Amino acid sequence: MRAAVFDSGVGGLTVVKSLLEHNLFEEIVYFGDTARVPYGIKDKNTIIRYSLEALEFFNNFEPDILITACNSVSAHALEELKTSAPYPVVGVIEPGVLAAKKRLKKDENILIIGTNATISSKKYERLLTKEGYFNITSKPTPLFVPLVEEEIFEGPVLEAAMEHYFKGLNPDGIILGCTHFPLISHAIKNYFEKAKLIHSGEAICEYLEEHLGIKEKNKETRIELFASENPSKLKKIAALWCGI
Amino acid sequence: MRAAVFDSGVGGLTVVKSLLEHNLFEEIVYFGDTARVPYGIKDKNTIIRYSLEALEFFNNFEPDILITACNSVSAHALEELKTSAPYPVVGVIEPGVLAAKKRLKKDENILIIGTNATISSKKYERLLTKEGYFNITSKPTPLFVPLVEEEIFEGPVLEAAMEHYFKGLNPDGIILGCTHFPLISHAIKNYFEKAKLIHSGEAICEYLEEHLGIKEKNKETRIELFASENPSKLKKIAALWCGI
Repeated sequence: MRAAVFDSGVGGLTVVKSLLEHNLFEEIVYFGDTARVPYGIKDKNTIIRYSLEALEFFNNFEPDILITACNSVSAHALEELKTSAPYPVVGVIEPGVLAAKKRLKKDENILIIGTNATISSKKYERLLTKEGYFNITSKPTPLFVPLVEEEIFEGPVLEAAMEHYFKGLNPDGIILGCTHFPLISHAIKNYFEKAKLIHSGEAICEYLEEHLGIKEKNKETRIELFASENPSKLKKIAALWCGI
Repeated sequence: MRAAVFDSGVGGLTVVKSLLEHNLFEEIVYFGDTARVPYGIKDKNTIIRYSLEALEFFNNFEPDILITACNSVSAHALEELKTSAPYPVVGVIEPGVLAAKKRLKKDENILIIGTNATISSKKYERLLTKEGYFNITSKPTPLFVPLVEEEIFEGPVLEAAMEHYFKGLNPDGIILGCTHFPLISHAIKNYFEKAKLIHSGEAICEYLEEHLGIKEKNKETRIELFASENPSKLKKIAALWCGI
């Protein structure tokens, strides 16, 4: 199977890392819209427009499935992508909620963090409420994105930013609702020692295996990386984060 | 006179504020490319492409002059804009250097801060060196942009970010090489008590008055605001920052 993975930039490589660890596809075609990144500060209509343009790019590769690694895309453009794509489209939000359901009791306190676009969509919140959760706090944490982009994964600036966003909270579980956040999961884990972290990459692998019946392959995954600007930077980060 | 003001987003409103205070134009047409902001993390070629697209938009208004408020545009796309525009184009970098020249002695220590795109261009550095300055430090401070976007103008996160970037430095003058930075100039002034700050908005007004002979008008400035997404947010920020 050939999977297309769409992200607003390089962050989706954290999802690719999980897909490679689970070895679910023969081939992955990744496109990061680095020329227009970040999507998380943009409007619904803009995110839909950019996502449909990415779809045209992927159509050249005739993928078997499209995975939208970007939470902002999954929150705002999933329906439009599903309507337009001639193949199945899977976002990261429903898998994230199902992963939370496996790890957290209904009365446990869930914190959802993400970009402004993802949090304002209330998509995680609605699906969790439907599943019976009622202790839900949603918090946009947009500064974490440029911190990761600057490779600040620990230290005083990140600690001040965590204190700014997290002060007074005490969650049992945290949904990392942005592909950048797994890179600071160690710091978040230090801040909230007892909280369980839900990671989009792990969640999507569980979803593909358990709900779509996609099983581990024997062959190694071939991967092709594309970016709307600076593909060499994307390849460098892929080497660093995913060892490819 | 009708001035076109181009910025990657809302930051250029700090330049508009100065233009309004100096009352140099009968009319200002502002365009912020909010659907593709920020430019400061993007490549030279992408910045040129987006800038030339903005030029097509401005051509509809037949402006007498185009001011590129955005430092990243001024650093990377000014020559291309000058070649393509049928009217004069003024960036903020040369005015910033001339403003520094009026305020700082040749042997004084100058710190240039800006986005990755602006700093990597070395444009401020080259012009300052040409003017005889030799104590120059350039520092990309990209986190300041999202901090301002989040309306964090003071407090522990900004202080940690300043400490991260500024530790060990002791400048006599600082060039605020990004339209967002005037909004945190108070905090920067607190950090470096003796440093003189050079602000793009003030610098461009001095340049227009002293080098292009544009004088204060009697009439009030009419202003039209356009954005590639969410123009209502731009108008709200204009009301807040510029009182318009």
